[in-house]
Amino acid sequence: MVVELISVGTEILLGNIVNTNAAYLAEKCALLGCSLYHQTVVGDNEERLEAAVRQAMERSDVVILTGGLGPTKDDMTKEVVAKVFKRELRMDEHSKTRIQEFFDKIGSKKVTENNWKQALAPEGAIVIDNLNGTAPGLIIEDKEQGKRAILIPGPPGEMKPMFERDIAPYLNRLQPEGIYSHMVKLCGIGESQAETMVSDLMDAQTNPTLAPYAKTGEVHFRVTAKAENEAAAEELMRPMIEKLYRRFGNAIYTISEEETLEASIVALLKERKMTVTTAESCTGGLLAGRLMNVAGASDVYREGYITYADASKEKLLGVRHETLTKHGAVSEETASEMAFGAAKEAGADAALSVTGIAGPGGGTEDKPVGLVYIGCAVDGRVKVRRFQLTGNREKNRNYAVVRALTFLREELLLEKAPQGQ
Amino acid sequence: MVVELISVGTEILLGNIVNTNAAYLAEKCALLGCSLYHQTVVGDNEERLEAAVRQAMERSDVVILTGGLGPTKDDMTKEVVAKVFKRELRMDEHSKTRIQEFFDKIGSKKVTENNWKQALAPEGAIVIDNLNGTAPGLIIEDKEQGKRAILIPGPPGEMKPMFERDIAPYLNRLQPEGIYSHMVKLCGIGESQAETMVSDLMDAQTNPTLAPYAKTGEVHFRVTAKAENEAAAEELMRPMIEKLYRRFGNAIYTISEEETLEASIVALLKERKMTVTTAESCTGGLLAGRLMNVAGASDVYREGYITYADASKEKLLGVRHETLTKHGAVSEETASEMAFGAAKEAGADAALSVTGIAGPGGGTEDKPVGLVYIGCAVDGRVKVRRFQLTGNREKNRNYAVVRALTFLREELLLEKAPQGQ
Repeated sequence: MVVELISVGTEILLGNIVNTNAAYLAEKCALLGCSLYHQTVVGDNEERLEAAVRQAMERSDVVILTGGLGPTKDDMTKEVVAKVFKRELRMDEHSKTRIQEFFDKIGSKKVTENNWKQALAPEGAIVIDNLNGTAPGLIIEDKEQGKRAILIPGPPGEMKPMFERDIAPYLNRLQPEGIYSHMVKLCGIGESQAETMVSDLMDAQTNPTLAPYAKTGEVHFRVTAKAENEAAAEELMRPMIEKLYRRFGNAIYTISEEETLEASIVALLKERKMTVTTAESCTGGLLAGRLMNVAGASDVYREGYITYADASKEKLLGVRHETLTKHGAVSEETASEMAFGAAKEAGADAALSVTGIAGPGGGTEDKPVGLVYIGCAVDGRVKVRRFQLTGNREKNRNYAVVRALTFLREELLLEKAPQGQ
Repeated sequence: MVVELISVGTEILLGNIVNTNAAYLAEKCALLGCSLYHQTVVGDNEERLEAAVRQAMERSDVVILTGGLGPTKDDMTKEVVAKVFKRELRMDEHSKTRIQEFFDKIGSKKVTENNWKQALAPEGAIVIDNLNGTAPGLIIEDKEQGKRAILIPGPPGEMKPMFERDIAPYLNRLQPEGIYSHMVKLCGIGESQAETMVSDLMDAQTNPTLAPYAKTGEVHFRVTAKAENEAAAEELMRPMIEKLYRRFGNAIYTISEEETLEASIVALLKERKMTVTTAESCTGGLLAGRLMNVAGASDVYREGYITYADASKEKLLGVRHETLTKHGAVSEETASEMAFGAAKEAGADAALSVTGIAGPGGGTEDKPVGLVYIGCAVDGRVKVRRFQLTGNREKNRNYAVVRALTFLREELLLEKAPQGQ
């Protein structure tokens, strides 16, 4: 089944917003086993939109359009698609009621006339409730020709839940077999090494398939199976996932699409009833900020320190003055004392420290930009790793954060035998 | 001049990467005064790429293609465009030398054969040096038909500098007048209020034009003028910028495209020889992390505190136990004592504190999710502001950071008469 995406909106065309919707939909549709050959962006212009829809309907089975479903006269996606499918627009009373309820809920006194435009639907269309806004989604089918148009509101906060809840199952029903997948996420192994370690599996793949995805400092492998139902797909995927566990072992921190590295670490700490703290120099709060983005991080994190100045490293973390003068702030010794001191000061079971030269200035021949030392203390034992990063200031800081999280995870897993998958 | 964008690459088509290149190029081309009506994404497929190029050349004056210029046989953008323009590919000796030099520099022993493919150029093409990679850019002109294709490597780290340095000036030369602009950036005023305050200027606009852009917690207005040269454009823009300063006053923190809010605050602190610190609860390091992304922030920031637990607020910041028990951690009183205590502990001239309920859990009827108190201490005087944010955990934390930065800036400007624009 060939699916094509059309993003409607002058704000995308002029680069005022990045087209994340297209990436999201493309990835989801590919995962559903659809073939994707074209993506198009057109502005709020009737003639060009109509030409784009006609061309897409010509060469694809399903055209997904996002945007242009709002209340203003610039919003014309529905009108244009109805014209191409030769359908009249009719008031959909169910959508009208929902729009009224939406405005009642947000306490709006009066619904302005143009909002009712959003309740109009092409004859015979399937109307999809919008749980996060006023414009419903629409599916228009021409079963004789085997052509379908799916219209979804443009705001990602409305588009994504609607796709997940209603559109994805609809697309899956159109196909003889469903597509199911796991994301096997690794940390602490480089992209090319990881791919080499499973190149035989990638070469031999049929069902399930195995595909790598690179992320800042991490490697993700998607395992995808085609099967009649989810249980059968899980059955197909299990041997592949077991193979990956045998090869990568503890480097795999999750096989769930949603779980992040920091969430897996917070979960690990909770499971072991341990707390953690952070002492940051060059990352200046980013590491703590990332851990704290996990809801419920307060169970494992009580306090943390940002120590840019040498004097602050001494005062807050108890780094010795001699260490700083002899080895410098960016050194194995300082990183070690920072981690040790942070754990002690916070009364935490574990601590991460980061000290480095993020750039662009501050580098020397001995200690170039990108040099970062990361200390990790667990139950009073401290280890330090040295990294030479090669990006700009922002990249170096973000990589240092991932390296630190990976380090902590590995040390935590050393403590106790892992729980298996 | 109508410009059209074609992004080449299966990884975009399948949603493995977000098409940020298209947004970047679209915005830049719009700023140069080009008209944009279409963006297309095609995969690494010769037939479909050729069809896309032919269609684009038909309806636009200039087609910018990104991606597909690498060394592998999947990379075929150059080959397809050469075919459409009926040009032979020839070895470009200058590019060949540059590729050799590139590999020498990174210490690679031998350049593999397929790398020389990148030095091939269509007959008569303008070759653009790639300062950040091996594949050069190419401009192919058909002056008789008034059609041009511009080919740029796909990696953003190669594409952006090449566009800035060579492609933008080339496009500007094609037009009778150049386009120049300033970004007037505001903080502390909401989007709709800001637009209302200048609606007359927006209605009356011709040259220069005025257009609003919303960013998390900020409002930006782009002032754009069309003129023969930069000096003439500045002359045209000056009265508009002066009007904006008269209406928005100190809410304008910069008129430069590149300067961020945090950079403007670091500059303000440097100018006044002041230091700052942060005491964060719900933002957990994000505020410090953002300030520290400014190169040279170490001049104004020595240390900071992440105090999630109540006990940490007492221990590190000297918040009184009674304050926490009587008013709670999320309260005006706690925010005030956090800011006061942080400034004292760090020996800093200024301090920001953030305490709130980021969500999703932790909210009550009295103190719902999204409630945030921000304290700001400057020279020993503390003020607190209360915000009720309405996003998810991540949004609430990011908004709180912008609100805090804005608060500090306003307090700093109260201290001393502003320096004018």
